[in-house]
Amino acid sequence: MNLNEREARDRLARARIARLATSGADGRPHIVPFTFAAVDDRILHAVDHKPKRTTDLRRLRNIRENPSVSVLVDHYDDLDWELLWWVRADGDARVIEDEAGRAEPVRLLREKYSQYRERAPEGPVIEIRVTRWTGWAYR
Amino acid sequence: MNLNEREARDRLARARIARLATSGADGRPHIVPFTFAAVDDRILHAVDHKPKRTTDLRRLRNIRENPSVSVLVDHYDDLDWELLWWVRADGDARVIEDEAGRAEPVRLLREKYSQYRERAPEGPVIEIRVTRWTGWAYR
Repeated sequence: MNLNEREARDRLARARIARLATSGADGRPHIVPFTFAAVDDRILHAVDHKPKRTTDLRRLRNIRENPSVSVLVDHYDDLDWELLWWVRADGDARVIEDEAGRAEPVRLLREKYSQYRERAPEGPVIEIRVTRWTGWAYR
Repeated sequence: MNLNEREARDRLARARIARLATSGADGRPHIVPFTFAAVDDRILHAVDHKPKRTTDLRRLRNIRENPSVSVLVDHYDDLDWELLWWVRADGDARVIEDEAGRAEPVRLLREKYSQYRERAPEGPVIEIRVTRWTGWAYR
């Protein structure tokens, strides 16, 4: 069954890990697992370390070339496929590097993950504005 | 630390679920969770049900428009980030619809998943030829 938008948004926000698909000017899709904080229709991520150049990381380069992204959270259960569900958030991303813009996302990430309270992420922030929520659950 | 190609291939093959990123002619990335069987440098998936047209499913339409795909398997542990790892397989995909071509992939999927032994997938097969293995583990 399809999940409604609110249910999809809630399930994604509660997840601890998601996957981010980007696609650069070359049209080749690229996928990475990523930690995130979600607020309403925004999904926020921060790169752990400062890359030497912001073009160094493929996810950042792709977003600069093509802001369209797709984010997925899914639940798998090998014994009972009736427990399967997934949520996809499609939208547009941008890279935030200035300290003023990084402050709120980094604060939210530190609230969500104890690991970031021990050591805050130092790299650029990716902010995704979700334009479409899609979700499915077996039951 | 980076995983070598053999380790990356082995970890992906043992996983029960992966994520597939495709990107169509419009350049928008798309991401879905998917079951698969992996043999050497091939990753095989079958759609559960026959779509009315093979252009109906976004993953199939995208692959027909642009064969480049990216597949991800990852392991997350909320309590201990030292257990984190991921494997990415980049390559080219094609859609197989004829029964002769579907036979081996469906057989391998039924060997791997008991659910498919109860009810075989009926839809088109996606065959991915991996051209690049990438993997990382915290330790």
